[in-house]
Amino acid sequence: MPHSALTPDELQRYAPDVAEPDDFDQFWRDTLAEAAARPVLVDVRPQPTDLPLLDSWDVTFAGFGGDPVRAWYTRPAGAREPLPAVVEYAGYGRGRGLPHERLTWPVAGYAHLLMDNRGQAGQYATGDTPDPHGAPGGPSPATWGILDPRDYHYRRLITDAVRAVEAVRALPDVDGDRVSVVGNSQGGGLALAVAGLVDDLAAVLTTAPFLCDMRSAVGLTDLAPYGEIGRYLAVHREGEEAVWRTLSYVDAVTFARRATAPAHFGVGRRDTVCPPRTAFAAYNHYGAANGRPTPPEREIHVYPFNGHEGGEAVHVRRQLRWLASVLHPAHASTG
Amino acid sequence: MPHSALTPDELQRYAPDVAEPDDFDQFWRDTLAEAAARPVLVDVRPQPTDLPLLDSWDVTFAGFGGDPVRAWYTRPAGAREPLPAVVEYAGYGRGRGLPHERLTWPVAGYAHLLMDNRGQAGQYATGDTPDPHGAPGGPSPATWGILDPRDYHYRRLITDAVRAVEAVRALPDVDGDRVSVVGNSQGGGLALAVAGLVDDLAAVLTTAPFLCDMRSAVGLTDLAPYGEIGRYLAVHREGEEAVWRTLSYVDAVTFARRATAPAHFGVGRRDTVCPPRTAFAAYNHYGAANGRPTPPEREIHVYPFNGHEGGEAVHVRRQLRWLASVLHPAHASTG
Amino acid sequence: MPHSALTPDELQRYAPDVAEPDDFDQFWRDTLAEAAARPVLVDVRPQPTDLPLLDSWDVTFAGFGGDPVRAWYTRPAGAREPLPAVVEYAGYGRGRGLPHERLTWPVAGYAHLLMDNRGQAGQYATGDTPDPHGAPGGPSPATWGILDPRDYHYRRLITDAVRAVEAVRALPDVDGDRVSVVGNSQGGGLALAVAGLVDDLAAVLTTAPFLCDMRSAVGLTDLAPYGEIGRYLAVHREGEEAVWRTLSYVDAVTFARRATAPAHFGVGRRDTVCPPRTAFAAYNHYGAANGRPTPPEREIHVYPFNGHEGGEAVHVRRQLRWLASVLHPAHASTG
Amino acid sequence: MPHSALTPDELQRYAPDVAEPDDFDQFWRDTLAEAAARPVLVDVRPQPTDLPLLDSWDVTFAGFGGDPVRAWYTRPAGAREPLPAVVEYAGYGRGRGLPHERLTWPVAGYAHLLMDNRGQAGQYATGDTPDPHGAPGGPSPATWGILDPRDYHYRRLITDAVRAVEAVRALPDVDGDRVSVVGNSQGGGLALAVAGLVDDLAAVLTTAPFLCDMRSAVGLTDLAPYGEIGRYLAVHREGEEAVWRTLSYVDAVTFARRATAPAHFGVGRRDTVCPPRTAFAAYNHYGAANGRPTPPEREIHVYPFNGHEGGEAVHVRRQLRWLASVLHPAHASTG
Amino acid sequence: MPHSALTPDELQRYAPDVAEPDDFDQFWRDTLAEAAARPVLVDVRPQPTDLPLLDSWDVTFAGFGGDPVRAWYTRPAGAREPLPAVVEYAGYGRGRGLPHERLTWPVAGYAHLLMDNRGQAGQYATGDTPDPHGAPGGPSPATWGILDPRDYHYRRLITDAVRAVEAVRALPDVDGDRVSVVGNSQGGGLALAVAGLVDDLAAVLTTAPFLCDMRSAVGLTDLAPYGEIGRYLAVHREGEEAVWRTLSYVDAVTFARRATAPAHFGVGRRDTVCPPRTAFAAYNHYGAANGRPTPPEREIHVYPFNGHEGGEAVHVRRQLRWLASVLHPAHASTG
Amino acid sequence: MPHSALTPDELQRYAPDVAEPDDFDQFWRDTLAEAAARPVLVDVRPQPTDLPLLDSWDVTFAGFGGDPVRAWYTRPAGAREPLPAVVEYAGYGRGRGLPHERLTWPVAGYAHLLMDNRGQAGQYATGDTPDPHGAPGGPSPATWGILDPRDYHYRRLITDAVRAVEAVRALPDVDGDRVSVVGNSQGGGLALAVAGLVDDLAAVLTTAPFLCDMRSAVGLTDLAPYGEIGRYLAVHREGEEAVWRTLSYVDAVTFARRATAPAHFGVGRRDTVCPPRTAFAAYNHYGAANGRPTPPEREIHVYPFNGHEGGEAVHVRRQLRWLASVLHPAHASTG
Repeated sequence: MPHSALTPDELQRYAPDVAEPDDFDQFWRDTLAEAAARPVLVDVRPQPTDLPLLDSWDVTFAGFGGDPVRAWYTRPAGAREPLPAVVEYAGYGRGRGLPHERLTWPVAGYAHLLMDNRGQAGQYATGDTPDPHGAPGGPSPATWGILDPRDYHYRRLITDAVRAVEAVRALPDVDGDRVSVVGNSQGGGLALAVAGLVDDLAAVLTTAPFLCDMRSAVGLTDLAPYGEIGRYLAVHREGEEAVWRTLSYVDAVTFARRATAPAHFGVGRRDTVCPPRTAFAAYNHYGAANGRPTPPEREIHVYPFNGHEGGEAVHVRRQLRWLASVLHPAHASTG
Repeated sequence: MPHSALTPDELQRYAPDVAEPDDFDQFWRDTLAEAAARPVLVDVRPQPTDLPLLDSWDVTFAGFGGDPVRAWYTRPAGAREPLPAVVEYAGYGRGRGLPHERLTWPVAGYAHLLMDNRGQAGQYATGDTPDPHGAPGGPSPATWGILDPRDYHYRRLITDAVRAVEAVRALPDVDGDRVSVVGNSQGGGLALAVAGLVDDLAAVLTTAPFLCDMRSAVGLTDLAPYGEIGRYLAVHREGEEAVWRTLSYVDAVTFARRATAPAHFGVGRRDTVCPPRTAFAAYNHYGAANGRPTPPEREIHVYPFNGHEGGEAVHVRRQLRWLASVLHPAHASTG
Repeated sequence: MPHSALTPDELQRYAPDVAEPDDFDQFWRDTLAEAAARPVLVDVRPQPTDLPLLDSWDVTFAGFGGDPVRAWYTRPAGAREPLPAVVEYAGYGRGRGLPHERLTWPVAGYAHLLMDNRGQAGQYATGDTPDPHGAPGGPSPATWGILDPRDYHYRRLITDAVRAVEAVRALPDVDGDRVSVVGNSQGGGLALAVAGLVDDLAAVLTTAPFLCDMRSAVGLTDLAPYGEIGRYLAVHREGEEAVWRTLSYVDAVTFARRATAPAHFGVGRRDTVCPPRTAFAAYNHYGAANGRPTPPEREIHVYPFNGHEGGEAVHVRRQLRWLASVLHPAHASTG
Repeated sequence: MPHSALTPDELQRYAPDVAEPDDFDQFWRDTLAEAAARPVLVDVRPQPTDLPLLDSWDVTFAGFGGDPVRAWYTRPAGAREPLPAVVEYAGYGRGRGLPHERLTWPVAGYAHLLMDNRGQAGQYATGDTPDPHGAPGGPSPATWGILDPRDYHYRRLITDAVRAVEAVRALPDVDGDRVSVVGNSQGGGLALAVAGLVDDLAAVLTTAPFLCDMRSAVGLTDLAPYGEIGRYLAVHREGEEAVWRTLSYVDAVTFARRATAPAHFGVGRRDTVCPPRTAFAAYNHYGAANGRPTPPEREIHVYPFNGHEGGEAVHVRRQLRWLASVLHPAHASTG
Repeated sequence: MPHSALTPDELQRYAPDVAEPDDFDQFWRDTLAEAAARPVLVDVRPQPTDLPLLDSWDVTFAGFGGDPVRAWYTRPAGAREPLPAVVEYAGYGRGRGLPHERLTWPVAGYAHLLMDNRGQAGQYATGDTPDPHGAPGGPSPATWGILDPRDYHYRRLITDAVRAVEAVRALPDVDGDRVSVVGNSQGGGLALAVAGLVDDLAAVLTTAPFLCDMRSAVGLTDLAPYGEIGRYLAVHREGEEAVWRTLSYVDAVTFARRATAPAHFGVGRRDTVCPPRTAFAAYNHYGAANGRPTPPEREIHVYPFNGHEGGEAVHVRRQLRWLASVLHPAHASTG
Repeated sequence: MPHSALTPDELQRYAPDVAEPDDFDQFWRDTLAEAAARPVLVDVRPQPTDLPLLDSWDVTFAGFGGDPVRAWYTRPAGAREPLPAVVEYAGYGRGRGLPHERLTWPVAGYAHLLMDNRGQAGQYATGDTPDPHGAPGGPSPATWGILDPRDYHYRRLITDAVRAVEAVRALPDVDGDRVSVVGNSQGGGLALAVAGLVDDLAAVLTTAPFLCDMRSAVGLTDLAPYGEIGRYLAVHREGEEAVWRTLSYVDAVTFARRATAPAHFGVGRRDTVCPPRTAFAAYNHYGAANGRPTPPEREIHVYPFNGHEGGEAVHVRRQLRWLASVLHPAHASTG
């Protein structure tokens, strides 16, 4: 389905009406309340690495339905003061991998929690968390239980993501007022979802986010994960309405509208996996329905010649500087 | 990994030693015994179609773990005498679809049971049977629970396939002595597995079978489903031995060695999905360890210019004639 | 040549002016008159199959220029009453294949005539009818004789298709008032052409039709068969006007405008072989120039996530129910 | 079907037994005798070009069955002495094109006849010669009439190629003792065929020849034109023996064995269209059965990093020098 | 980045504002003045070929920075009168190749100089001219020195192209008033650049020109050479403005605006290498800023079904006739 | 050119005779002596990053011909004791990038110098070092100057790599006895080259090395960079011998034979960029000609289901543990 790319101006104005179910807030209040009934930390054990500058722990916390969800927790070695924390969500088809794979945030001085994606490990990186909730649907995680929002895989994964924030706050020597969420692709979509569900985050950093403006996205690209939903619909020709309804409960645009924390976006204008307009849909709606008098700070960086990889090291440098400026407004300059 | 194709002569002689665990028979005896503890038929209800020449029913039977497994059951309209039956297994990524999709066997006069594949529907055809057994593994069904034979998806699917034979025998007006199994690709692998586990089948018809000589196959092709196992191993670099062990419990060559029923094979020599040598591995070993004094009848038809599609209508005609000749040896000639 | 896909609304309104030569009707009157000068049935002989529920015959009828055209004729076994008939046209690159390949219509109770495509067999299915009319043009059937409408392959094939209706009416035990035409892709285009040339058909069922709005289609897709015409023009840079003129004599939109029978369409919105707008061109013009006071009944089903395969089994079920309702309006409900 | 490439040494030794029908020579004697019954030149008219250094004519000669076959005839402008001639055959899917497309041979001082390929024009270059002999077969020229050697397209095309030599000899100011044949790909195969049927040629220049060792070639490559025969067999699963028999009447290896003229070969070792071993089959057998006491001169140039394009300008320079040395042995040095 | 193709009407009107630096003319005046300080001919030696109808020389002239640039010079054998000359520029990734590769222009009676492309040989054809000016940039010639117009590869190549015209005028027996420039793709862009820098050319013939409307082109296609600039920007995310500035000094649209000679364009409407709109940008602006009262003659031929290959032999015939008509207006008719 | 992959056993034995020029050692002695004539450190300035745990410097050292070569130098923040050092070489088409892109080695406690690749930046990562030595050759760095070993790009790059070791030893607080070299792909080839030219390295870590057994490799793969050499030869048909001669001066197998330091290899068995056999050629020859009585320690890890990415994080963990064990044999265990 060839679609003309939007021009830079069209992207800046792209703010589609994403369907929002009447019981959206109730659905998530109930879901999170059920999860919150259990203590969040299940197990925390030191994890030896070969990196003397860092300390790591293997953390298990109680996610959706109380399911044990794994995470790597890493900090500058020997740091004992309360550190600002960064909770990171991994991309689609990835788990948490090995503890030395994501070094940037701890080397930058943050306490860093990298959450495993339940049931997704195996395609690009290893993981240790199954998703033991059978439900009718297609073979891809993006379609598990897709005929009903209560059964949908992303209901569980978003709940896990919220619980990861609670987990990091329950760990010692963490400054609970300075917890940020960060992610790329599916991780970027989860960060936006958490931003709409947790109202006292310090910052949100999202790049090439999945889960945004999903009904449009499924029509725009054949690549996974959106394309897996399209292929599901190609086979389940009579399930379209049920699928659109389910997606409306997990669309990151709807979460973004409720967000209050400052937000930093990155997007490649040639992204064919998560089309750039869908990131702009979240950006342009960001905080619009958060009930506050002034909108949250937000900025977006577009990389016109890049695809799903976006700004890579150039953007990481921007993220590091921006987050420092948000957490220490007095003595930092944005980049 | 380019591999030279085997010549026709090399294929005729290809009989690799496929690893066979010591407790293979015990493993399956226990697995089937557990399943056999429940009544097989759960529900049988007439299914209206738009085809006056046929009668159809929507059947639910108790598969692995007692899980409800769906099937379409179709017969010549109004036939009341005990009919020979054909149990058909669908390919990977397919469910049972709609009841009018597979007409050949009932139009040829057989009672026909088409089993749903648990958890697989969605990629190529619809289905109605989930696989509610979470287990660590990759996102593709061929990797669900692959680190332990007890958790592996194919333990459950093969058990379902055996139970489907029991289900058709429990239905009225079926000649239980003349039940055959048939399948293509994954369905062909399941037919061979059933042939090794059920010893009084009338015949086995298998084309382009999956599940055969699996360790070789994973090394020979990057295409799904074997390629999904290869991709799992590319990410889970430390899981190789566990995977080979698990596969040794479901390899159709090992089942084929135990088979006793007459067998009819079809294979495309340019099959890049299920490499032809792996079908010959099953064919050349067929019945070799069934404990009988004489080997079962078997024949194989090779289509030298065809891939995974094999002989298609030409082969279907051969299958119809061969099965008729096996069931009515007096007045039929093989084709 | 990337083109934006049309939106659903744009498709519903897409009714382009397709060029119509002044002598279009005369051209076809003369062509058909010449064919009609011969008796239509040349040979009818019983064809053994392995399907006891059906009877088959190998039919030869006199097509364009009196050329012998082959067909399979299949009915419910032993049926002696006059049956409604379905004449089916095969897709591009296919012949009639083997007699057990198309079972749906006879199993649904119809007399079924499956026409061979002259000269096309070999790419996807076998056939038995050559096209012994050499004419300058490219190597693909869609370009044979394309520089002059009198020489064009589709002049001959469309004439054959009309003659197939006459052939089925000449067979015994057929209800000549209830003859329908059906086809997919090229077969769907032929069905529309016949609908414009034969005015007492019971119904027309067409899916993903080729031959519609051809000049647009050649500009929209590089895939065969339209793309073969585009490639011919890439080489024959000076033949463009002659080609557009020839195509104007066989465009199914122009035939569709003249049609009177109720029509049932199916189309995949992601069809890149026969772009969906071209099917809508035929649908939106259907019956518009048939000289009757009220337009014929018509309906169209769009499968938004499907390509050239369209609705497959879901659509077949719709076709079966719709045709039953058209033939037996009293006791059927459309689906 | 991945096949290991042969090493340079294996190529030098590759001399397979190509099946040779008992009546091969009789078949061609009869075929050519029938063609020879007519005068060869049908029409010769000056063709204006925009190239003052050359004179061109549009020639029509009587080919197989007396069919009119077109050719471009080009010479140095104003040359009146008898010139040595080069008859060139075009590649598969090409016709003779426009008269200024092939300048090398006339600019090198030769009388040059470029034969049209009947029925093939349209895919890569234009042409003006139809092939008005309908016969069952697939849609590609390489499969027209392939079930019977008498009906096969290449019987007609090879006959045309022989007649082209006779035509050039019938033109004024041509030195009939110094007629060479040249061609690339299909043209190279035709040159070899002519070399086996016409025994007083001055030289044969062939590059990347098609039509050699065809049964092997069909097994080695999926690319056209060999791949078109493979695809025909994939559909016509029961026609394999007939096809092999037909091909044995047109295999250029069998013609090459009968050749007497000096031969110059060129081949790219990475040629995936006409696998290099098949050219070596012709080269290694060249002249082996020509009944002469000493074998004809032959040489072959291999381009190890090139595919079907072979040596291009480097090889053209070699051809020019070699042909000059063959025609003027006293004052030339080979290159 | 899918973009809708422009319609024929949109192409005829496409005349974008291409950024033009204030010092554009000064930049080129200085650059050419520096080159002009040296004698242009460095070496001219006869080049033996195997083509008696032509004479060839291996020419070395002083290009940018006095660097020795090679060229083939070819004329009708023995011609002694002053001939009109054609200077030809080769495509991207090509050098001058071997002297017998480009025969059309000399066979048409012209003195023909084929310039080597410094540093580019190796991808499609050989060459003999290095580009010994190291400068930061990417690995592809189109990105060498791209961060500064003074360092950019095309500053040097365009200067060479101007010097080639001076070189041919310095050769004996050339009619210096009748020098034309011709080229395809990059050669077509160079021809336009020369047309803007040399004001007494007889004619310009350009097909599928590169270097036109470059900033748009980089956004429209991923294919080389434009795509190489896009890939450079994908890595050098912070170099975009510098790149656009550099390109503004070499954009052939800006050169075309200054041109005075009659111009003949050819373009394929499906060209994905050099998008057709960019050729129209040059065509529609052609001569618009040349300071003359009447615009120069110009014509453009569009090949709607062709890509970067454009009109091939059909267009060559048009070029030959048009150039003859321009040079001999009395007795020629355009084609 | 499909080639059968080697089996694991064949790989373990693969030790081809790689051509070694007689003056190989003299060639490199002269080359390095010339470079050694200048002071190595040109400039060292602190580089601010946003990573408090690390200190970075922007280093410029004098490489081949005294050319300024850039590098990033990074250490644990505030470390003042002499640290063991790791010199890292980047892959083909990459420069040094930004200073925060490679964190593993400094976070593991090493002084880390990441060398820029002259002239290569732009394809995958940025860089700051041009290669200002024009020489005939193709457009890709792997072909610059390839007709003469003295002109070849890799002569310069290998010299730079040796100088990088000298540079790190010249920096303060580095333990010059514990300098290791590490690299992946081209970086892995450079590490092996340095291992053959510098005899007191502490260790060599190489993965998926380029530059090994190059003549074989060019025949085995069409992918860059080997494929760029193949494509050069496809155009420069007469340059083959010169190319093989040049490559023999830079083949990492010949360097590996001279190496004395302990070595750690990693390879993916499905690597199609740098075929695994070529890494085994270096491994099996490693140290064989270093003139020492006992061979150096070496180990290799094969990842059977991985391609050029090899073992990734699993292998990094192995490298970290192995290097620790080599540097601190008393209290480490290999992994």
